[in-house]
Amino acid sequence: MAAKRDIAKRHRVIIVGAGFGGLWAARHLKGAPVDIILIDQRNHHLFQPLLYQVATASLAPSEVAWPIRSMLHDRKDITTMLGTVVGVDPAGRTVRLADGSAVSYDTLILATGARHSYFGHDEWEAVAPGLKTVEDATALRSHILLAFEEAERETDPVRQQALLTFVIVGAGPTGVELAGTIADLAHDTLPRDFRTIDTHETRVLLLEAGPRVLNGYADSLSDYAKRALEKLGVEVRLDAPVTQIEHGAVTVGGQRVAAQTVIWAAGVRASPAAEWLGVPADRNGRIIVEPDLSIPGHPEIFAVGDTIAVQMPDGPPVPGIAPAAKQEGRFVAETIHRRLSGASGPHAFRYHHQGSLAQIGKRKAVADFGWLKLRGAAAWWLWGIAHIYFLVGVRSRLSVALTWLWIYTRNQRSARLITQAEDKAAVD
Amino acid sequence: MAAKRDIAKRHRVIIVGAGFGGLWAARHLKGAPVDIILIDQRNHHLFQPLLYQVATASLAPSEVAWPIRSMLHDRKDITTMLGTVVGVDPAGRTVRLADGSAVSYDTLILATGARHSYFGHDEWEAVAPGLKTVEDATALRSHILLAFEEAERETDPVRQQALLTFVIVGAGPTGVELAGTIADLAHDTLPRDFRTIDTHETRVLLLEAGPRVLNGYADSLSDYAKRALEKLGVEVRLDAPVTQIEHGAVTVGGQRVAAQTVIWAAGVRASPAAEWLGVPADRNGRIIVEPDLSIPGHPEIFAVGDTIAVQMPDGPPVPGIAPAAKQEGRFVAETIHRRLSGASGPHAFRYHHQGSLAQIGKRKAVADFGWLKLRGAAAWWLWGIAHIYFLVGVRSRLSVALTWLWIYTRNQRSARLITQAEDKAAVD
Repeated sequence: MAAKRDIAKRHRVIIVGAGFGGLWAARHLKGAPVDIILIDQRNHHLFQPLLYQVATASLAPSEVAWPIRSMLHDRKDITTMLGTVVGVDPAGRTVRLADGSAVSYDTLILATGARHSYFGHDEWEAVAPGLKTVEDATALRSHILLAFEEAERETDPVRQQALLTFVIVGAGPTGVELAGTIADLAHDTLPRDFRTIDTHETRVLLLEAGPRVLNGYADSLSDYAKRALEKLGVEVRLDAPVTQIEHGAVTVGGQRVAAQTVIWAAGVRASPAAEWLGVPADRNGRIIVEPDLSIPGHPEIFAVGDTIAVQMPDGPPVPGIAPAAKQEGRFVAETIHRRLSGASGPHAFRYHHQGSLAQIGKRKAVADFGWLKLRGAAAWWLWGIAHIYFLVGVRSRLSVALTWLWIYTRNQRSARLITQAEDKAAVD
Repeated sequence: MAAKRDIAKRHRVIIVGAGFGGLWAARHLKGAPVDIILIDQRNHHLFQPLLYQVATASLAPSEVAWPIRSMLHDRKDITTMLGTVVGVDPAGRTVRLADGSAVSYDTLILATGARHSYFGHDEWEAVAPGLKTVEDATALRSHILLAFEEAERETDPVRQQALLTFVIVGAGPTGVELAGTIADLAHDTLPRDFRTIDTHETRVLLLEAGPRVLNGYADSLSDYAKRALEKLGVEVRLDAPVTQIEHGAVTVGGQRVAAQTVIWAAGVRASPAAEWLGVPADRNGRIIVEPDLSIPGHPEIFAVGDTIAVQMPDGPPVPGIAPAAKQEGRFVAETIHRRLSGASGPHAFRYHHQGSLAQIGKRKAVADFGWLKLRGAAAWWLWGIAHIYFLVGVRSRLSVALTWLWIYTRNQRSARLITQAEDKAAVD
């Protein structure tokens, strides 16, 4: 089987990671005189802003994840590679893969994202999983649905209450969205399905170490979000750092709360890209990049997205959200265009904050555009329309619109599947 | 938390298994003076006739599986229980669950289905998986998609050919549908996505120990199916029993074929219900039931679906297909209605064969109604319409119709996700 074409001749750009940052870099390199190798350890690009809807049985995984190859199949300049990068050799200009092979580059873009951070309590990860991958989401979905199943069969009321208690640690957008959606699931979707338990009695607890929910939004929206969550039946506790998490319980404010389900939405840590390169990072492991997003001392290496820390000269740090990663990916692509066309001179990234949107529950959301602040039903419709717009492809948009229509009108969440590894499938 | 109602008073029917047989029994028990407990080890009913489309990345799991509770939530007489039955005590009239608990019944309906059978070669299961559960399908989907990914990176042409060789053992409906759909996937969906390999060169081999494909269909349709598969590029070998399967290779006709993917679609074995009861079974483990589908010596225990063998007095054995299980489930429900209303006298199950439908590939199918035989595009449209009709709920029908429209018009299969347990997620 002969290779279809020779990719060894032109300037080669390797992009590691096909999240928003890496994918937008690849898109905006279109037309540049380069060959691109896009390496990811998954075969799919994941629309992380809606991943919590997979975890709460609202959407199917294939509605928020798309094969990378398929998204880029018209781009003959891009070769997609499924593989795990484990290191970079900046001197030899190669990246090393887990299978021992190496691939050389002329320009490297690291877009390797972030994972959860447990602030030094790595042992909490096993009992308080976070939400970053499709597998995280389907495992959490099974865990949540199994808690209701076990409660239905439990005869000890104390144990039953623990099974019906869901604790979310961290009241950023993901924590707020998870708490609100679990409350909707318990109060709108499930009640008719159970006979022994009343799922209205489900307890959802949102714990936040800081003084407010949705930190970064306008105060008025944070206040609204808290009240809206409480209206949905979520208990919100502010200034409430978690001091201990163990199997089946979380300790907060000196009080031990029995809970079968604890979800971590409190912090992230950058991928080990800084360690690969041996360059300075901030305390969350994020590379401190140059103004043009290149690595100090290595103008041929760029990094974008959640794996870097960027401070605007006149503003707050760039937030770890999808629009920021897209802008950074695009900026790096434009920088490469410029360099290869011979342009020189300083060129610095500038972040344009387009606004923040978070769903709280059915017909409840907040939108903060700075000049315009919306909340309630108006913000919720805007949230829905914006997210459908941002999905990839007409089919996904139709499919998600259809799914949401069913949830909205009939409270039916069709993705309520408990699936798991075969050896765990037999519950008792 | 108080129980919503007391379920201990009325005649209690336990149904084990929420496949077609068990679910149809539950549906047709509506209005009977009974309380029903429906026990399944999964939380979802699975539309098995389309499971191969999950394995081949055409449909999402949630398009062919629905939460059992949700399907039955209007039936206050039914309590759904997630649990694994591990035994029956006919004398004490209880079923035993894996957690050690027991539930008592007045009438028992066993609808526990079947698993793969490797004809004494259980060691083949690990290297030639079959297709019975959602987990089977998503694991097979990952396996198939990974084979293409690995082939793209493989430099040894012999190894590359093995990665691009897919062997399906057994040319019944599932084998035919898998072979045709994998050929469509390789020839229509994937070619534009890869750079190093030409997925048109994918080899799909369908092996059948008997003399024809689609045994049970009219000869003319079997012949057509074979030719149609060959037109799709599938190599069909008849009278070709497999003598050995090992990791990466299958031996047939004394010849060893290197193949990364071997799929088992050759035989099933009934669940161990016959062993639970200590009653006679045929060589496939299927209980030989009375004409009214009760267990010999136990008129209060019925069995339906793939777990039983039924011979019509004047015809062939009842086939192990969804319509047969549904008819049996309905028949048993009607028998229970009759008994509880005091009717007596003999009452024997009669199977009405409504016809057989199998898809081969895009615009290619066969339909055999006895009085009417269709093939090609007409049969394919009929197949599509019939299967959409049989799906559960308007939303699933719209969703599957939309998905199929995309596959039909654009060759896009959106469910191409490689997902797996976290510890295996990092491919090298």
